[in-house]
Amino acid sequence: MGAAKFIRGLARRIPAERLTVIVNTGDDDVFYGLHVSPDIDTVTYTLAGVAGAQGWGRADESYATLGALDRFYGPHWFTLGDRDFATHLYRTDRMRAGTKLSRITAEIARALGVRARILPMSDDPVRTFVKLRGRAPLPFQQYFVRGRARGAVERIELRGATSARSAPGVMEAIRGAGAIILAPSNPFVSLGPIFALRGVRAALKRRRARVAAVSPIIGGKPVKGPADKMLRGLGMQVSALGVARLYRDIASVFVFDKIDSALAPDIASLGMRPVTTDTIMSNPAKAARLAEVVLRALPV
Amino acid sequence: MGAAKFIRGLARRIPAERLTVIVNTGDDDVFYGLHVSPDIDTVTYTLAGVAGAQGWGRADESYATLGALDRFYGPHWFTLGDRDFATHLYRTDRMRAGTKLSRITAEIARALGVRARILPMSDDPVRTFVKLRGRAPLPFQQYFVRGRARGAVERIELRGATSARSAPGVMEAIRGAGAIILAPSNPFVSLGPIFALRGVRAALKRRRARVAAVSPIIGGKPVKGPADKMLRGLGMQVSALGVARLYRDIASVFVFDKIDSALAPDIASLGMRPVTTDTIMSNPAKAARLAEVVLRALPV
Repeated sequence: MGAAKFIRGLARRIPAERLTVIVNTGDDDVFYGLHVSPDIDTVTYTLAGVAGAQGWGRADESYATLGALDRFYGPHWFTLGDRDFATHLYRTDRMRAGTKLSRITAEIARALGVRARILPMSDDPVRTFVKLRGRAPLPFQQYFVRGRARGAVERIELRGATSARSAPGVMEAIRGAGAIILAPSNPFVSLGPIFALRGVRAALKRRRARVAAVSPIIGGKPVKGPADKMLRGLGMQVSALGVARLYRDIASVFVFDKIDSALAPDIASLGMRPVTTDTIMSNPAKAARLAEVVLRALPV
Repeated sequence: MGAAKFIRGLARRIPAERLTVIVNTGDDDVFYGLHVSPDIDTVTYTLAGVAGAQGWGRADESYATLGALDRFYGPHWFTLGDRDFATHLYRTDRMRAGTKLSRITAEIARALGVRARILPMSDDPVRTFVKLRGRAPLPFQQYFVRGRARGAVERIELRGATSARSAPGVMEAIRGAGAIILAPSNPFVSLGPIFALRGVRAALKRRRARVAAVSPIIGGKPVKGPADKMLRGLGMQVSALGVARLYRDIASVFVFDKIDSALAPDIASLGMRPVTTDTIMSNPAKAARLAEVVLRALPV
């Protein structure tokens, strides 16, 4: 998750109390009867300083529960650690008691010592499905983890997105933020579900002057994940420019890697201010430097 | 659990295919949203050869999930291991899908390689509460584990027992068994809930000639657990004789420790055949020997 690295960098540059992260829930799924919110957990664990180096789950994990579950369910394809299970147990237990995901997310963050605000995009279920050529649509994790993001993507379906309401605090955060940053993340499956919620895209348009986007594509390749296959499958150019086009109506600043600086005139012609810098976040200091560049690019 | 040691001994003396264990579910409870059946699990793990030496849970356990749960729920008082959690996750997941506990218990046993038949006493909820002097009734695990079995027991409540039906196979097992053994277990909270089910006690009475009971009390002390406090709290004699009185209508043979052999005439006067032997199961071989004595005491 490029977004997680970026958020960690951001947290080094602004006080936690001033940071609100709005997180995709479209790739939530149920495993072993437990509600798993992979993106929320990655952001929470990252801000708590307990995230695994692998980009998901917790550091210093063990997998005893999962191993024992295999006896009952057969071999697993989605990896959940013993400590991570505690998060899913708590979330599921609270949801069954009727508590909203937004409230539970805040409880988990507080319990793990996170001071920034983490908001699920919605308390209502939105489920991302990926339609591959010649196959029925797959729930996101089945495409991404089980299927290893293989196959020609024809369409992304954001089921429930049009009827889902944004979670409490989401619209207020967009309206009130001094700076809004679209993290370097998959535009379709990570940011797309958030934009699909009623009112969100319109609210971002109104704040366009204060919105910067960071390209998840560097030199024609995604930092991580299947964004290139998706862009290609959907007939778009796999480049920072292709991503910039998706955001031109909602972002006034576009930050992308200096390796792609030849694209600057094209991006400028979209009505966005092009900002080039080193966007490869190979360590926390570099992630913090990128965050600083993005923050400075938004005129005060 | 004296019963677990005894069952392990029994499994060394008769083929697994011929062994049916009817297990109490009155001390089942919900932890972290998961349905935990401590007695079923102890019997299952024992027969699978994966039981912990401590008398509950699994051997070679780790407690990473529980430690992480403490962050959300505060310090735990009921210990659940990482591997053990898999069992509770599977059971709960299957129950939510509408599957009966008896069927799930068979699935878990099969997955763990158990060939004997393990039957929960009922698929309906029965909950054992313990009423201590000056306190409201406590669910069994709160009395036994959280409260460490302290306090003066006034009454045992078996909530739901009169309306619960015995699980499929229970009545058939009692009617068809060549030998029925009441394991050395707490007569009130381990065997009591089973006897309280409609039809069970009457069925045992009809099979009395083929029923042997093994005393859980040796020299005035329980092998394990709070049976002495319960017997005393309920105004009964804390001795093998006190236990024998509870079973006189349903068992024709009473097996107890040779240290208590002075009680033989009193037990005989209850109309039961007294059998004394070494009932201290300090190792599996001794447990098997005790099982053999009990089996031989039932006339073929």
